[in-house]
Amino acid sequence: MSNQPYVQIAYDDLVTLVKDIFVGAKVSADNAQAAADVLVMADAQGISSHGVARTQRYLNDIAKGVTHPDTPHQVLKSGPSFEVWEGNHGLGSVLSNKAMKRAIELAKNSGVGMISVRCSSHHGITSYYTHEALAHDMIGVAMTNTAPLGIPTGGLGARFGTNPLAFAAPTTGKLPPFILDMATTNVTRGAVEIKLRNGDPIPDGWAIDSEGKTPTDAKAFLDGLLNLEGGLLPLGGASAGHKGYGLAMMVEIFTSLLCGGDYGINVRDTPETAACVNHFFMAIDIKQFRDLDHFKTDMDDYLQMMLDTKRADPLKPIYYAGQIPHANMVTAKKDGVKILASVYEELKSIANKYSVHVPSAKAL
Amino acid sequence: MSNQPYVQIAYDDLVTLVKDIFVGAKVSADNAQAAADVLVMADAQGISSHGVARTQRYLNDIAKGVTHPDTPHQVLKSGPSFEVWEGNHGLGSVLSNKAMKRAIELAKNSGVGMISVRCSSHHGITSYYTHEALAHDMIGVAMTNTAPLGIPTGGLGARFGTNPLAFAAPTTGKLPPFILDMATTNVTRGAVEIKLRNGDPIPDGWAIDSEGKTPTDAKAFLDGLLNLEGGLLPLGGASAGHKGYGLAMMVEIFTSLLCGGDYGINVRDTPETAACVNHFFMAIDIKQFRDLDHFKTDMDDYLQMMLDTKRADPLKPIYYAGQIPHANMVTAKKDGVKILASVYEELKSIANKYSVHVPSAKAL
Repeated sequence: MSNQPYVQIAYDDLVTLVKDIFVGAKVSADNAQAAADVLVMADAQGISSHGVARTQRYLNDIAKGVTHPDTPHQVLKSGPSFEVWEGNHGLGSVLSNKAMKRAIELAKNSGVGMISVRCSSHHGITSYYTHEALAHDMIGVAMTNTAPLGIPTGGLGARFGTNPLAFAAPTTGKLPPFILDMATTNVTRGAVEIKLRNGDPIPDGWAIDSEGKTPTDAKAFLDGLLNLEGGLLPLGGASAGHKGYGLAMMVEIFTSLLCGGDYGINVRDTPETAACVNHFFMAIDIKQFRDLDHFKTDMDDYLQMMLDTKRADPLKPIYYAGQIPHANMVTAKKDGVKILASVYEELKSIANKYSVHVPSAKAL
Repeated sequence: MSNQPYVQIAYDDLVTLVKDIFVGAKVSADNAQAAADVLVMADAQGISSHGVARTQRYLNDIAKGVTHPDTPHQVLKSGPSFEVWEGNHGLGSVLSNKAMKRAIELAKNSGVGMISVRCSSHHGITSYYTHEALAHDMIGVAMTNTAPLGIPTGGLGARFGTNPLAFAAPTTGKLPPFILDMATTNVTRGAVEIKLRNGDPIPDGWAIDSEGKTPTDAKAFLDGLLNLEGGLLPLGGASAGHKGYGLAMMVEIFTSLLCGGDYGINVRDTPETAACVNHFFMAIDIKQFRDLDHFKTDMDDYLQMMLDTKRADPLKPIYYAGQIPHANMVTAKKDGVKILASVYEELKSIANKYSVHVPSAKAL
């Protein structure tokens, strides 16, 4: 991977490019903006698996008619602190943006807001949506289920998704906010694929093939996944994988069972349909629970307590969740977002199809 | 451990014994009942580390005046869906019982109820409180922080607790409910102590000593813990411990930062004071989100999907979270609760002090 050429492109230019492409594909300007914002933030944070390289895949689903970017959602159920939405196969980023904003509105009135979104699609990096809660001085929670990749402890086949969980809480600004964003499997499929592709051995506890062995053959492993044979081991690996297994199920219950969405092995694309993916969002209005400034100074103090831990290796600093993506994003906003030259070329050719202006990028 | 003698005692008899002991120590009947119920359920589920063996420790804290079992809590803040309580160094089990019941009341009115409890004490098994939510056909969430034992990734000293997270969702009854109850460290301190005591090696990824090595000397390891040197590795161990580290911090933010309670290395007993432990409870009224019967049949189906996974070992069934404790509890209600004979003898001698009747137990 490391010897592939990269380019650097100004943050706002990349957002505009991706937005214009979605507008070219007949997505409304607001929804195109929402989709572009989340994709670019992933690259800016260094999480390219969820970045602008996915643009073509989203466009394919829109063209096939399995994702409906501008179809409005319906509110199926509601109360002072929650709403359940039917997503109508909308774009995950569009629905998730709106859902978190609505959760924040509800939280303003009642302290807590929860939105359960049924039948949406891939929504990019789950933590993206928690930033909106932070901007309102709230705690933000976001979860989504995914197609099955994770294996129940003691089993040989995938039954639930990597089901990520994101949680964010604000600081005074002296330190970056705490933002946890984690798959509930030990590692993602992407991590396994990279090891296999590079011919590196896969550490025990990451994944197993259909016979329960740590995979050594990339093709056989990926083929097995298509048939739900083999998959990723839950967080905790060999000694405590039952915990990650439980967490993944908890996320699926919050996201899917609570609103009547698809779950487990039912969350799968077919040639004609897209999997119904489901989300859960929660905002907590901190200032209704306690003095906001005290919360924030306590957060700074708690995070600093972690950073001040005696280091195992004096040269390796301690980090807390969200710090490294935050630092990457600061760099990307200043110097531009780093993407693969091949991804830039692909975006260029998509842009040409829609007669969209392509901003220049610097070769690295 | 296994060659120590056990006794079996009828479930209700054991509850009555422990309740009467607390009443003997001048705890009100209702609060004594609450404390006894949670301790006995732990033993019945096979989690003796949190069972009736703790009775003397609770009595000591009451006698020292650092735990105030009958002091009422105050509601510091409230809204349609939440309350923040000052626990006034109450008994964890008493406050937690009341808090989950109040969360359920709030959820009845607004779909969601959250109670944040500040300055409480040890509350036993965290999942105990989620049973009350299940009894009301609600999803229940419970969390608590604890004294520091967990180590930030890349560090050498404990900075946060084992910070357990419990989550429960109901089924039709055809299968036991899903009840997750997990420390956010890979294993508990008790698991490490048992290995060391038996002279067994500790698997890598469980714990480290003050020099970052897997401990081999029980005494040195336990002495180090007293000074926050060394401790338990977060869930995920060597490859993904940053996730458990993040989850533990998430639990601490929900439980402590949100209500202004003690956090991190400040959660420590002194000879004169008990650590201020903090809890968080949430109830979600499922029937306001979707048809309750559909939710429950979907839960059955989802859980069965897990149980039907092809097994790695044909002789070893797949389980989901909560199944084994549930089966243990069914046995304990039928045949009696199994406790160490030495624990029974200790309860007897405490009971004699308070002139409390001691029910008979069967030697095993």
